[in-house]
Amino acid sequence: MKRLGKQTLEVVNNCYIIGRGSLVGEKEKNGTFRKYMEYSTDDDKMGEKTFEKGERKMLRLINKRAIKDAELLVDDIDIYLGGDLMNQLVSSNYVAEVLQVPFVGIYSACSTITASIGIAASLIDGGGFKNILCSTISHFSSAERQYRYPLEFGNQRQSYSQWTVTAGGGFVISSKKSPIKITKICFGRVQDFGVVDIANMGAAMAPAACDTLCNFFADTKTKPSDYDFIATGDLGKLGSDILRDLMKKKGFLLEQNYSDIGHSIYSFDEESYQGGSGAGCSASVLATYIIDKLLDGTFKKVLLVATGALMSTISNQQGDSIPSVAHLIELEKS
Amino acid sequence: MKRLGKQTLEVVNNCYIIGRGSLVGEKEKNGTFRKYMEYSTDDDKMGEKTFEKGERKMLRLINKRAIKDAELLVDDIDIYLGGDLMNQLVSSNYVAEVLQVPFVGIYSACSTITASIGIAASLIDGGGFKNILCSTISHFSSAERQYRYPLEFGNQRQSYSQWTVTAGGGFVISSKKSPIKITKICFGRVQDFGVVDIANMGAAMAPAACDTLCNFFADTKTKPSDYDFIATGDLGKLGSDILRDLMKKKGFLLEQNYSDIGHSIYSFDEESYQGGSGAGCSASVLATYIIDKLLDGTFKKVLLVATGALMSTISNQQGDSIPSVAHLIELEKS
Repeated sequence: MKRLGKQTLEVVNNCYIIGRGSLVGEKEKNGTFRKYMEYSTDDDKMGEKTFEKGERKMLRLINKRAIKDAELLVDDIDIYLGGDLMNQLVSSNYVAEVLQVPFVGIYSACSTITASIGIAASLIDGGGFKNILCSTISHFSSAERQYRYPLEFGNQRQSYSQWTVTAGGGFVISSKKSPIKITKICFGRVQDFGVVDIANMGAAMAPAACDTLCNFFADTKTKPSDYDFIATGDLGKLGSDILRDLMKKKGFLLEQNYSDIGHSIYSFDEESYQGGSGAGCSASVLATYIIDKLLDGTFKKVLLVATGALMSTISNQQGDSIPSVAHLIELEKS
Repeated sequence: MKRLGKQTLEVVNNCYIIGRGSLVGEKEKNGTFRKYMEYSTDDDKMGEKTFEKGERKMLRLINKRAIKDAELLVDDIDIYLGGDLMNQLVSSNYVAEVLQVPFVGIYSACSTITASIGIAASLIDGGGFKNILCSTISHFSSAERQYRYPLEFGNQRQSYSQWTVTAGGGFVISSKKSPIKITKICFGRVQDFGVVDIANMGAAMAPAACDTLCNFFADTKTKPSDYDFIATGDLGKLGSDILRDLMKKKGFLLEQNYSDIGHSIYSFDEESYQGGSGAGCSASVLATYIIDKLLDGTFKKVLLVATGALMSTISNQQGDSIPSVAHLIELEKS
C-alpha cells in the first residue's frame, strides 16, 4: 500500500473483488433495488427455530455463494474476515466454524463490510494472502430484540428511526484479476458529536461520514464530482441531509451522484421511517446494485463509505453519547 | 508476508514491538507475575461512576503508556486495532474517539491481542503502515455482569470456572527496529467440540489451541522444544491439562517450556479456581513478563497462543455449544 496524505491508502499491487454473494429478506427484496436483488427469502427464520439461527443460515449461504461466484473452493480461502451486529459476533463465529479457514472477527457495526474489505485489500496488497472472504449480515428481528425491545412489545417507533435490514453480503477479495478493482482505502476515525438518542443513528453517524470523506478528498486531491457514484452506508434520509449540510460547510457539494443506501433501500414509506440501517445494508447493495452498475459500465469509479454507530445497550443506559465511524473503499472498473 | 504451509505467515520485512503499556487490578498485581506488573490500581472503577467507565479509563492509560514507551506521539499512529469483551467493543470504541486516529475494532474474545497484533504485523510487513497501536482489556466486574450474573447476586462458582482478569495491554507495532521482533503469525480456525457449559471455557478452548499449534508446527517444521517459552492465553489449569493431552495424541509434547497464562496468573487459590481468563490476560502478561524475559535474554524465541471462546449469552441461552479460536504470534529477540 502507498500512503496518500494522512489517512488514505492506495493499492499498489492489484486487488479485486472476484466473487460476491447476497441474500435479502422480503421487505428488502421489494425495495428500490428489487431488480438487482438476485437472492431473497420470505422466511426470516430460514426454517430454524430462532431468528439468530436463521441469521447464521443466511450468512452461510451468502459465503457459499461468494466463494462459488469466485470459482474457488473453501480451501482456497486464506482467511475469513467479517462480523455482524450480534453480541460477540456470534453469527459470524458459528459460520466460521463450518468453513474451517482462519478467521478474525471485525466489528464496526454497519461499517463492518468496508472495514473488512479495507483490511483484506491491505493484506492482499502486502502479499502472503491470495483470496480473502469478507462478509457481514444484519437481521431485523435479532437486532431489534438485542438492541431495543422484545418484538412482541410492539413499541412505537420515532419518526427519525431507521429499520434494520434483513440482508447480508459476502465478497472474495483477491489478487486474481477481475473487472472490479479495489483502488483506495480510507479507514475512519471515531467521531462523537454528542447524540444520545439511539433511535437517531443517522445524526450520530453523519459526522463520521463527513470526517472520512473530507480526509479522503484532501488526501487524494479529488472532489465529489470526480466520482460516478458516492454511496454512504446507512445514514437514512435525515442523516444524509445532515451529511450534505456538513460537507457543504467544508466546501464539498454532494449532488446527484450521491446517495445514501439506507435512505434508498426501501421504497419510502411510513413503516421504515428514515430508511434502512444494519451491517447488511451496504454489504447487500454492494454485492448487487453497485457491482452490477460497475460491470455494465454505468459507473466507472465508485466510493462506498459505510457508516457504523458504535454504542451498546449498556453505554446507552449509562447515558453515553453514540460514537461513530465510517470506512471508505474506492472501486473502479478495471 | 511469506506463506509457510497452509496457515502460517512469515514476516518478510522487519516488524517489531516498539512500545508497550499495561495496567492490572489488585488481584492481578498480587499474582505470580507481581515482580513484572509495573502499573496497577486498587480502584477498579478508576474514580468513575461505573465499572464500564472505569474500564475505558484503564484502556486510555494503557494506550497512552504504549505510545509514550514507543517514543511516539498519537499523531504518529497510522491505525489503531483492538477490542475488548464488552458488547459492541464499547470500551475500545470510546477510547478510539479520544485518540482520533483511524480505528478498526477486532473481536476475538480472549485472543483479541494476538489477532490484532497478527493483523498489524501483516499490515506493517505489506508497507503503507509504519506504526500501529494494538490493545485490549478485560474487567472482572463489567464482564461478570454482562456475561453471567449481577455482581450483587453472589453466585456460587463451579470448580472448573475461571476468573476474568482486570487487566489490559497495549502495544505499538512498527517497522522501526527494536529488540522485540515479530517473526511469524498463525491465524486460527474456529473449533467447536460441543462444550455447552459457559463456566467451562478451558475445555471449550483447548481444541482451538491444539489446532493452531499443530498447524503451526507442521507449517514451520518445528516442534515445541524449539522454543524457549510457549504460552497459551487462558485455558486455566483444566484447559491446559486437556491441551497437553490433545497435543500428546498429535505427537507433540508440551513440557517445562509450556505455560498457560490463565493457569499461572494468580497464585492458585480457591477463589480463582482454574485461574484467570479475559482478553487482558495474555495482553498484560505479554506487555510485562514475556517482553521483560525477551529483553533480559532469558527467552530468545517465544510462541504466544491466545485463545478465545466465541459464544454470547444468547447463543448460550439457545443451547449452542461454544466455538473457540486461537491465534499465534512468534516473537524473537532481535
